[in-house]
Amino acid sequence: MLRTNPDRLWDTIMHLAQFGRTAKGGVGRAALSEMDGQARDCFVAWCEAADLKVRVDRIGNIFARRAGTDPEAAPVLTGSHLDTQPLGGKFDGIYGVLAGLEVMRSLNEAGLTTRAPLEVVVWTDEESWRFSPGMSGSSVFCGGMDLDRGLAAVDAQGVTVAQALMQIGYSGEHDPGGFAIDSFFEAHIEQGPVLESENIPVGIVPGAQGQRCFEVLVTGAEGHAGTLPMDRRRDALLGAARMVDRINALAFEFEPHPVITVGRLQVRPNSRNTIPGSCRFSIDARHPDDQVLASVDVKLRELCRQVAGRTGLEVEVELESRRTTVHFDTARLDTLRQAATQLGIAHRDIFSGAGHDACNLAAITPTAMLFVPCEKGISHNELESARREDLAAGCDVLLHAMLARAGASVLN
Amino acid sequence: MLRTNPDRLWDTIMHLAQFGRTAKGGVGRAALSEMDGQARDCFVAWCEAADLKVRVDRIGNIFARRAGTDPEAAPVLTGSHLDTQPLGGKFDGIYGVLAGLEVMRSLNEAGLTTRAPLEVVVWTDEESWRFSPGMSGSSVFCGGMDLDRGLAAVDAQGVTVAQALMQIGYSGEHDPGGFAIDSFFEAHIEQGPVLESENIPVGIVPGAQGQRCFEVLVTGAEGHAGTLPMDRRRDALLGAARMVDRINALAFEFEPHPVITVGRLQVRPNSRNTIPGSCRFSIDARHPDDQVLASVDVKLRELCRQVAGRTGLEVEVELESRRTTVHFDTARLDTLRQAATQLGIAHRDIFSGAGHDACNLAAITPTAMLFVPCEKGISHNELESARREDLAAGCDVLLHAMLARAGASVLN
Repeated sequence: MLRTNPDRLWDTIMHLAQFGRTAKGGVGRAALSEMDGQARDCFVAWCEAADLKVRVDRIGNIFARRAGTDPEAAPVLTGSHLDTQPLGGKFDGIYGVLAGLEVMRSLNEAGLTTRAPLEVVVWTDEESWRFSPGMSGSSVFCGGMDLDRGLAAVDAQGVTVAQALMQIGYSGEHDPGGFAIDSFFEAHIEQGPVLESENIPVGIVPGAQGQRCFEVLVTGAEGHAGTLPMDRRRDALLGAARMVDRINALAFEFEPHPVITVGRLQVRPNSRNTIPGSCRFSIDARHPDDQVLASVDVKLRELCRQVAGRTGLEVEVELESRRTTVHFDTARLDTLRQAATQLGIAHRDIFSGAGHDACNLAAITPTAMLFVPCEKGISHNELESARREDLAAGCDVLLHAMLARAGASVLN
Repeated sequence: MLRTNPDRLWDTIMHLAQFGRTAKGGVGRAALSEMDGQARDCFVAWCEAADLKVRVDRIGNIFARRAGTDPEAAPVLTGSHLDTQPLGGKFDGIYGVLAGLEVMRSLNEAGLTTRAPLEVVVWTDEESWRFSPGMSGSSVFCGGMDLDRGLAAVDAQGVTVAQALMQIGYSGEHDPGGFAIDSFFEAHIEQGPVLESENIPVGIVPGAQGQRCFEVLVTGAEGHAGTLPMDRRRDALLGAARMVDRINALAFEFEPHPVITVGRLQVRPNSRNTIPGSCRFSIDARHPDDQVLASVDVKLRELCRQVAGRTGLEVEVELESRRTTVHFDTARLDTLRQAATQLGIAHRDIFSGAGHDACNLAAITPTAMLFVPCEKGISHNELESARREDLAAGCDVLLHAMLARAGASVLN
C-alpha cells in the first residue's frame, strides 16, 4: 500500500520550527505575527511547489487545493493551525497541517489523481495567545462567529485581527465558508500520555469531551496565627483544602472518570502569621458525556456547600464557561479505523481532552480526528516532542482515509 | 484604693495616634521614621512635664525615671514600644508605654513617692517593619544582640539604624543596659479574642508560647487538565491540600491545642487548565510547652511524608525559625494577680500567642505581662480598638503592682 515519506514529513516539521524558535528549542509563534507570516509564506511556497492552488479567505484561513477529476465533487479537507503558545512546541497544530501537505506530496510522487479534490487548510489563530477567543479562523468559517467580530478582535497593543492580516499579507479576498465539503479530517498530537504508554501509534478520536469551568470563592475571617484559638477560627484555606481533596475524590465516583482539576488557587492575605481570610480557586471538569458533567456540576456545588458549612465558612461557586461534548461523524471515524486496519497500524479510540478546530468543523461537515502519541504527553511546552515513526503512521492513515473519501481508483 | 484616670489615658493614646495616622484611622509609624521621631518628642515632652528624668541609650531606647526615696534601690520598669505595623492600630505597644506614663501622672496627682524609682521605657523597633530583626531595642538592652549589629541594620533604602537615630535625634549617649532592675512589667492588648469573649478585663500572662515555623515544598508534575487521566496525575496542590487538612487536625491531638496555621500557599504554574506541578506553603506552630512543639515538629514531617507518598509526590519540610517558650517570673505574676484581686478586677491567666519586648527582658530581670481585651481580637490592623474601661483596669493593676514592688507607704 502507498505510504507517505517519514523523513520528508519530519524535515518539513523541523524546517517550519525555525519561525519563532525559542531558547529551549520550542516554538513561540503568535497568530498573525511576523513569524506566523513567515511560516505561512513558507507553507504557501511548499504548496505551490506541489502544484496546489492556494486561496486565502477574509479571516486569513489558507486553503491549498489538489484538483480532482470531477470538478463538481466537494473537496475532502484536512488541516489544523500553525500558531503556537508563547512557549509552545513544534508539533501542536503544525503536524496536522504538514501531514496534509505530505499526503499531497506523496500522491504527486505516486502519480495518483483522485475523483474529488483534496485540500489542506491552515486555520487562523487556534491558540488565542494573541487574540481572544481562540479558534477564530474555523469559527468564522463555520458560521459560529461573525466575520466582523473576528476581524475586530484586538491584541494587547490594540492591533486588530484585520490590521494584523494586512500587515502579513493574509487578508484574503474570499468570503469564509460557503462551499460544500465532503469531509474534514484533522491529525494532531494527543497532548496526553495514553497512546505512548500503551505503545499505540494512532488514536481514533470519537469526539472532544465537554468542559465546565467554575470559579470558587471561600470566605472566612482573618486572624492572628499566634493568638486565635483553633476552635474559633474560620480558616478559608482550610476549607478550600478540604474542597480540593473532595473535588478530586468526586472524579472517581464516575466510570469512566471525568478529569477534574483545581489548577489555580489564591490565598488572601497570604501571610505566614495570618489565618487566611479568603481563598479563590478554579475548577476545570471535563467528560465525554454531558450528563456526567451535569451531575458533576450539581455534586461539586453540594460538596463545596457542605465543607463550607462544616468549616464555618461561606462559599460561592460560579459557572464561568461551558462547552458541550462534540461527537465526530461515525462514518468518517470508521473510514479512519479501516485505513489503519488495512495499513496494519495498531489503533484505539481515545476521546480528545482539549478543543480543536475540528470541533467547529463538525457543525458543518462530517468530521473526524486522529491522534499520534507525543513524548510523555507533554504539550504547550518547549519540550513537546513526538516520534518520527508515529507521525508517519498517523500521516499514512490520513492519506488512506482521504483517498477512501475522494475516490482513487488504484493504489500501489 | 488609688486609681488611674481613664479619660486622661484614653486622650493621651488618641493624641499620640496623630503621628502616622492612616486613612482608615489606624497608625502606620515605622521605627525611627520622622513620625516616630515626632511621637517620641511628644512622649518626652509629656514625661518632662510630669517631672520625669529622661535619658536615651545608644540604640534609642528612652527611659523616663520618677525618683524614689532610696537612691540605691533598683528601679521598677514598665513600658513597651511606639512603632507600629504599616497598617497598624493605636494600641499595640503604645498602650504599654502610655499606661506607664499614666501611672506616673496618677502618682504625681496623689502626691505619693515610692521607695524605689519607677521608670517608663520605650523600646526601639519592636515591629521590624522597617528594620530586621524586630525587638532590637530590648534585644540590645538585654545582651541578646550586639549593639554594633543593632546599629548596622539597614532599611530598604539602605539607611542604617545608626543613621536613622541621628536623623530623629535619638542616638543617645548611654550604653544600653548595665544597671540593676527590680522588675519589668509590660501591659499590652491581647491581640486575640479570649478576654473579650469572656468579658474579663485583665489577663495575667504566664509566658509567651514557643513557635516553630516551617516551609514546605511539594513537588509533583505539571500536566494538561483535559488530557491527563486522573490515575496518572501527580498533582502537587492535591497533596498540599491533604497536608493542610491533616496539619489542622494535628492541632486537635494535643490538649490544650497548639495553634497551627498554614497562612501562605503558592501554586505553580497556577493556571486553570494545568495540573499544579509544585506547591509551596508555610506552617506556623505555637504552644506554651516546648515538648509539645517538638512532638508537633516530628508529626508534621511524618504526615507530610505520608501524604506525599500516597499521592505520588515529593516533599521537603524545612524548619525556618524557632523560638522557645518564655516563662515569666512567678512572683511578679503573683504581684499582678494580687493587685487585680485587691482592686476587685476580674482576671484570668492567658498565655501570649505573640512575642513581646518582655520576652527579652525576662532573660535579665523578673518580668511579667498583663493583657487587656481588644475588640474582636483584631490587631496589626487599622481597625484595632479597645475599650476605655478595660484600658483603665489594666492600668490600675499596673499601678498597684509597681507600687507593691517599689514600696509605697500609704495608699488612699
